[in-house]
Amino acid sequence: MYTPSVQTLIDELARLPGIGPKSAQRIAFYILKSDKERALRLADAIVECKEKVSFCESCFNLSESRLCGICSDKDRDRSVICLVEEPRDVIAIEKTKEYRGLYHVLGGVLNPIDGIGPDKIRVRELLKRLSGNSGINEVIVCTNPNLEGEATALYLARLLADSGITVSRLASGLPVGGDLEYADELTLGRALVGRRVLIGGER
Amino acid sequence: MYTPSVQTLIDELARLPGIGPKSAQRIAFYILKSDKERALRLADAIVECKEKVSFCESCFNLSESRLCGICSDKDRDRSVICLVEEPRDVIAIEKTKEYRGLYHVLGGVLNPIDGIGPDKIRVRELLKRLSGNSGINEVIVCTNPNLEGEATALYLARLLADSGITVSRLASGLPVGGDLEYADELTLGRALVGRRVLIGGER
Repeated sequence: MYTPSVQTLIDELARLPGIGPKSAQRIAFYILKSDKERALRLADAIVECKEKVSFCESCFNLSESRLCGICSDKDRDRSVICLVEEPRDVIAIEKTKEYRGLYHVLGGVLNPIDGIGPDKIRVRELLKRLSGNSGINEVIVCTNPNLEGEATALYLARLLADSGITVSRLASGLPVGGDLEYADELTLGRALVGRRVLIGGER
Repeated sequence: MYTPSVQTLIDELARLPGIGPKSAQRIAFYILKSDKERALRLADAIVECKEKVSFCESCFNLSESRLCGICSDKDRDRSVICLVEEPRDVIAIEKTKEYRGLYHVLGGVLNPIDGIGPDKIRVRELLKRLSGNSGINEVIVCTNPNLEGEATALYLARLLADSGITVSRLASGLPVGGDLEYADELTLGRALVGRRVLIGGER
């Protein structure tokens, strides 16, 4: 029904995450209607991204040079490393403006069912960074708070148990602005266990 | 926070219809993670579409040659023309498999507020197609059933009043599988006015 090029464009667009056949058609017609220069800007942006962007040699964050902007920033705290699954998690943490240390992007989490063991994620590279006189004294494990993320955190905590490096984990609890009534029992349970003392002695 | 190429890609993606900043980020990271060949296929599809696809000389549907597949199909009924706003409407009508005639894509509807008069949509080209010994005896106006679509239909009906060509309009009524309770009063009113006789004499 569509011409071959239009059909190819719709098929390629429909492969993108979160884009169904209807959205793909809508976007294809938008591209057809928009002026050529603007449409080619999108094509160029894709090509440029694939050609220029690779991984930082140190933390494996996305980078257009040997070291990423964070690793090459002299003002960052080099004694702490935040362990994340994907480059997008670096962006999420950077947006909080609460963290001034370095990162290490694992590129995934342990998942025995999918056959992803420690050799498939960047654990070896992490150990190399931590070895010798690295000056790193804390690793914050920021994998997602789900089954695989927790298992990976536990695995890494055990792996680093004798290294003398503090291994910490992101707090679990109620989201800010959330509602007790709608919190699932696991989250509420974690919030209880991890409660903070507001006044009074130690816990 | 992103590298320049990634930021450019996200910005370009976020310009597409129905894609917000979050989806744009998600798609950008998907493109960065997918293998180069696949990502470049999308870029190529965009370039190819803009280079190859233009308008059919007769009906102004999208086409990769002088005449579109429908206009050059010898088996189509050449006595009836379906008037639509956009090429995507051709696809919608073709999908019904109820229509075997030709099309004419107006490229918009009359909209005095936005300054779109008959000279901005392909009315002149329609009159040219209908003039002389065209063999066309019916024009079905398939503009959208909204204010601008109805006004355009009325305008065209008046324009062709003395041509001897039948001008018809898509039926308005309840959508199949719809519910009386949830139908708006305008639609229900139209369904009443346009009621079909199931048994008995003429209306």
